[in-house]
Amino acid sequence: MALYPRPIENLIVELASLPTIGRKSAKRLAFKIIEMDDEKVNRLVNALINVKKEIHHCKICGNLTDKEICDICSDESRDKSTIVVVEDSSNIISLEKAREYKGQYHVLNGLISPRENISPEDLNIESLIERVKDGGIDEVILSLSPTVDGDLTINFLSEIIKPLGVKVTKIANGVPLGVSLEYFDEMSIYKALEDRREI
Amino acid sequence: MALYPRPIENLIVELASLPTIGRKSAKRLAFKIIEMDDEKVNRLVNALINVKKEIHHCKICGNLTDKEICDICSDESRDKSTIVVVEDSSNIISLEKAREYKGQYHVLNGLISPRENISPEDLNIESLIERVKDGGIDEVILSLSPTVDGDLTINFLSEIIKPLGVKVTKIANGVPLGVSLEYFDEMSIYKALEDRREI
Repeated sequence: MALYPRPIENLIVELASLPTIGRKSAKRLAFKIIEMDDEKVNRLVNALINVKKEIHHCKICGNLTDKEICDICSDESRDKSTIVVVEDSSNIISLEKAREYKGQYHVLNGLISPRENISPEDLNIESLIERVKDGGIDEVILSLSPTVDGDLTINFLSEIIKPLGVKVTKIANGVPLGVSLEYFDEMSIYKALEDRREI
Repeated sequence: MALYPRPIENLIVELASLPTIGRKSAKRLAFKIIEMDDEKVNRLVNALINVKKEIHHCKICGNLTDKEICDICSDESRDKSTIVVVEDSSNIISLEKAREYKGQYHVLNGLISPRENISPEDLNIESLIERVKDGGIDEVILSLSPTVDGDLTINFLSEIIKPLGVKVTKIANGVPLGVSLEYFDEMSIYKALEDRREI
């Protein structure tokens, strides 16, 4: 006899397959969800469905948005001459919170990683090169995690972009090496960005 | 300008409203979910919908089940003369894993708690009294958390059930006082159950 009725076991398996949620947390969550109001669970279900339906990548920079062009790319008051290159959209939120940088962004959606079998073609790199080739860009600032994969991606991008006559910089190692950028607060990241140096 | 597009913010809010998930975890989860396969998110959505649609309380004992009568109540090979009373269905899973107890259960769905405004009428107590009155029960074992609310509930139940001529026991305080039962492994709980004493 299975200990959990099938629908409960299914929910535990799906919750446990989410990042950062282990089997034990998934079990507790499942039992709490079962006791929650139908209305509250429906709100969660609809939020999941809507986020998948309405959120996609901005056609220009790759940022997550519910529009065709994201709010940052369509903001005419922002400086069009610099692009900060980030791993994912959540890095943009951190930098925007610092309220200091007023240029453009480009989201790679990951880093080059031989270990995880992620090659440059898997990332949003081609459209970055196109943006640089289209002109009007003075500087590309690489704001990537100071890890092996981050360094690999920085080297790859600078070798392609520098020959196009555009300055390429990377954020200073103002944060300890080997740790993912998402663990740092906005001002630490902005300070590192201020201290950027040419490659 | 809102930092997050509305559908992302909605998902973060709903995830953060789940127990044990804070705003920061909710943000990380939301961004991971956005990048997940549609198919995987659909499996999670369906698991949530199905658990709410198919899971309800057993008509006899209050255990969570996808049938009218749960597998334990409908198992004719189990002893019908003892009832272990628990706070919620997850406690049954723990005891069943110990594979030692072969009697019946009754799920209260909580504890009496003046602090949280939970009175006996809010719990699955009336049907427990009916089961005892229907006869055939020799012993009611109260397997409740050793907390203020747990003690209150134990006192309340024993005062009603003892006059019906049925032995009432509670599990031994073999676990530290003031800690919720769900944090203990199956054998600790079973040992405490073995050491039960009459009230």
